[in-house]
Amino acid sequence: MKTLILSTADIKGMINHIGLDCMMSEMIHRLTQAFQSFDKQQTQVPPRSGFEYTQPDYGLLEWMPTREAGKTVTVKMVGYHPTNPQLRNLPTVLSSIGVYDTTSGHLIALADATFTTALRTGATSAVASQFMASPDSSKIGLIGAGAQGLTQLHALAQIFSIDEVFVYDCDPRVTKSFLDRAAFMGLNLVPFADNRLNQLVSGSDIICTATSVDIGQGPVFENHTTKPWLHINGIGADSAGKWELPLALLKRSFVCPDFIEQAIKEGECQHLAPEEIAPDLIEVIQNQHNYLFVQQQLSVFDSTGWALEDKVAVEMLIDYAKDLNLGTFIQLESISEDPLNPYQFTTVSDDFPESSDAIITPRSLTKEYLNLETTSQIPF
Amino acid sequence: MKTLILSTADIKGMINHIGLDCMMSEMIHRLTQAFQSFDKQQTQVPPRSGFEYTQPDYGLLEWMPTREAGKTVTVKMVGYHPTNPQLRNLPTVLSSIGVYDTTSGHLIALADATFTTALRTGATSAVASQFMASPDSSKIGLIGAGAQGLTQLHALAQIFSIDEVFVYDCDPRVTKSFLDRAAFMGLNLVPFADNRLNQLVSGSDIICTATSVDIGQGPVFENHTTKPWLHINGIGADSAGKWELPLALLKRSFVCPDFIEQAIKEGECQHLAPEEIAPDLIEVIQNQHNYLFVQQQLSVFDSTGWALEDKVAVEMLIDYAKDLNLGTFIQLESISEDPLNPYQFTTVSDDFPESSDAIITPRSLTKEYLNLETTSQIPF
Repeated sequence: MKTLILSTADIKGMINHIGLDCMMSEMIHRLTQAFQSFDKQQTQVPPRSGFEYTQPDYGLLEWMPTREAGKTVTVKMVGYHPTNPQLRNLPTVLSSIGVYDTTSGHLIALADATFTTALRTGATSAVASQFMASPDSSKIGLIGAGAQGLTQLHALAQIFSIDEVFVYDCDPRVTKSFLDRAAFMGLNLVPFADNRLNQLVSGSDIICTATSVDIGQGPVFENHTTKPWLHINGIGADSAGKWELPLALLKRSFVCPDFIEQAIKEGECQHLAPEEIAPDLIEVIQNQHNYLFVQQQLSVFDSTGWALEDKVAVEMLIDYAKDLNLGTFIQLESISEDPLNPYQFTTVSDDFPESSDAIITPRSLTKEYLNLETTSQIPF
Repeated sequence: MKTLILSTADIKGMINHIGLDCMMSEMIHRLTQAFQSFDKQQTQVPPRSGFEYTQPDYGLLEWMPTREAGKTVTVKMVGYHPTNPQLRNLPTVLSSIGVYDTTSGHLIALADATFTTALRTGATSAVASQFMASPDSSKIGLIGAGAQGLTQLHALAQIFSIDEVFVYDCDPRVTKSFLDRAAFMGLNLVPFADNRLNQLVSGSDIICTATSVDIGQGPVFENHTTKPWLHINGIGADSAGKWELPLALLKRSFVCPDFIEQAIKEGECQHLAPEEIAPDLIEVIQNQHNYLFVQQQLSVFDSTGWALEDKVAVEMLIDYAKDLNLGTFIQLESISEDPLNPYQFTTVSDDFPESSDAIITPRSLTKEYLNLETTSQIPF
């Protein structure tokens, strides 16, 4: 009973085979399906929890659990360390995710979630935009052109026929580098400076805000005239006191949270009274005919990040790994044949040596998968 | 920046080098030190949390987090599936543990915790017994002779000069098999049948209760005459409604919980009023001169399992892995050199191939460790 490890090399292998565009499209497709079929009797998603600290620098380490009844528990561990880029040349977010079989408690898979966190956050905005933005949206405004801005745009590009992208970041070097980073999408990218931010706001059909504005320093743009059907994906607000959008704009918008319990603590919703908050994304998607009007009016998707998205993402990776024969199986858990003797495993010689070569070779990996699928009830 | 994976093969490698007795002694020693130096300003241990379910069978999947300020977050994931032995030939507890660097959020290590959960639970009882049992204790009574009973005895055997071990399990086959399972300790094991349980209770200096009594079906023995200095390690009570000890005995004992917040919910302490509960193990150990009297009276260690023990255990494994050059390093997290471009890692060729061979060989592993120790601030 081995554990599948999906490393960055495996993810690269998948992307090399499948392509980033296809993977993003698949992610959007799977998320849409997951939201459409979501049933809270079947899938529990408690609010995330974790540690927040200031030593050695400000940081968060959080766990984001999900349970699908009778099948799996998925727990994403996510670190948010905003000094990483400057001090360590590392991304702000580092993350991994474990999938556990609720039949036995076995760790089925451990995967990188650094890449999928970026991917799924973009993809979720695309899903929300599909249901709330005008279908003809062609002018995209980005406020905040960092890592998240890139995946926001990449995801929207899978759904909308994009004519122009207005790119703004409070750091002009970031605006500039975005033109290179996003070049692979082949879109018409227009950099905006501070003094034209209002024009970005008034000219966009869809805006994504993905800034790292400091707590208490929001909003990141002024209340201003907008197109009447503007849809905003508000990505950056993710902790108490952090917000990006002008309150007056929020108050005249249909503000749809991903996960209401979190959004009222950490998202744009922290400023709104309960009656000012629209139904959540699940409701809008599952009863879409009731919410068609939203596409014609101001709307905000208040995205704080929902563990269900991570579950969908890691299941996609596991499926790709199966199809492409990627991943490494490790016998992680010390399992004694005699369940009453936790030391028994130490006395049994097995088919792998005692040190770090305990890795199944790629050839036997196929067999593993076949074994799993034909002889056991373990999911995946 | 790789992640160290410590699998069952690595743990076998450690045990083959070090021996089970030495490893248990080291665990007891490290736990004693950790309890002596524990400072709740420095180390946060929130209560565990998780999912409890009845599909497909009754089970629990819980996370047990610990933070050491400025250094690491450690999260043990533990599955408790009591139908595992009968239905799946697997242990009830399957577990793994992750260690995260709070500087960057990086997953430093992932290790099996199935073995160490057994080891540390035994070791913690030995630590508690060292401070609360009579130092001359030589008669050990085991009520419940399953997996936990074995490690309880093994740990006590490192501390006390054991003259006789009285072994009882409600299933006589388990009592019988215990004689084989514990044979390696070279102790004088005396099996007890149901009708002599009272004699076990009255004849023991230390009793360990480690049963899987059903919720609401406790206690597992009757209130009876005991030696005046009897110390009991109550291991089995670990969920609401589950308990093992007679209330009358509890009420006349010094009942010391491992972790009061958990013990009042899940342990023997759930029956006691706050004034009937003694100070916790940390207090008893840190101020041992105030509690010497406990060794002469009835005492109970109410063990529900504390995440700090798991942190100490995984750090021991990591140290052994370093010393013995065991473990596997995997580049798990997808890290782009440009922190603003989460896709950048996909375009860089690196020194490992794209599929599952992304494992550093044992030879370069030494270099890894050296690199870690000399050039970075990552703990371990």
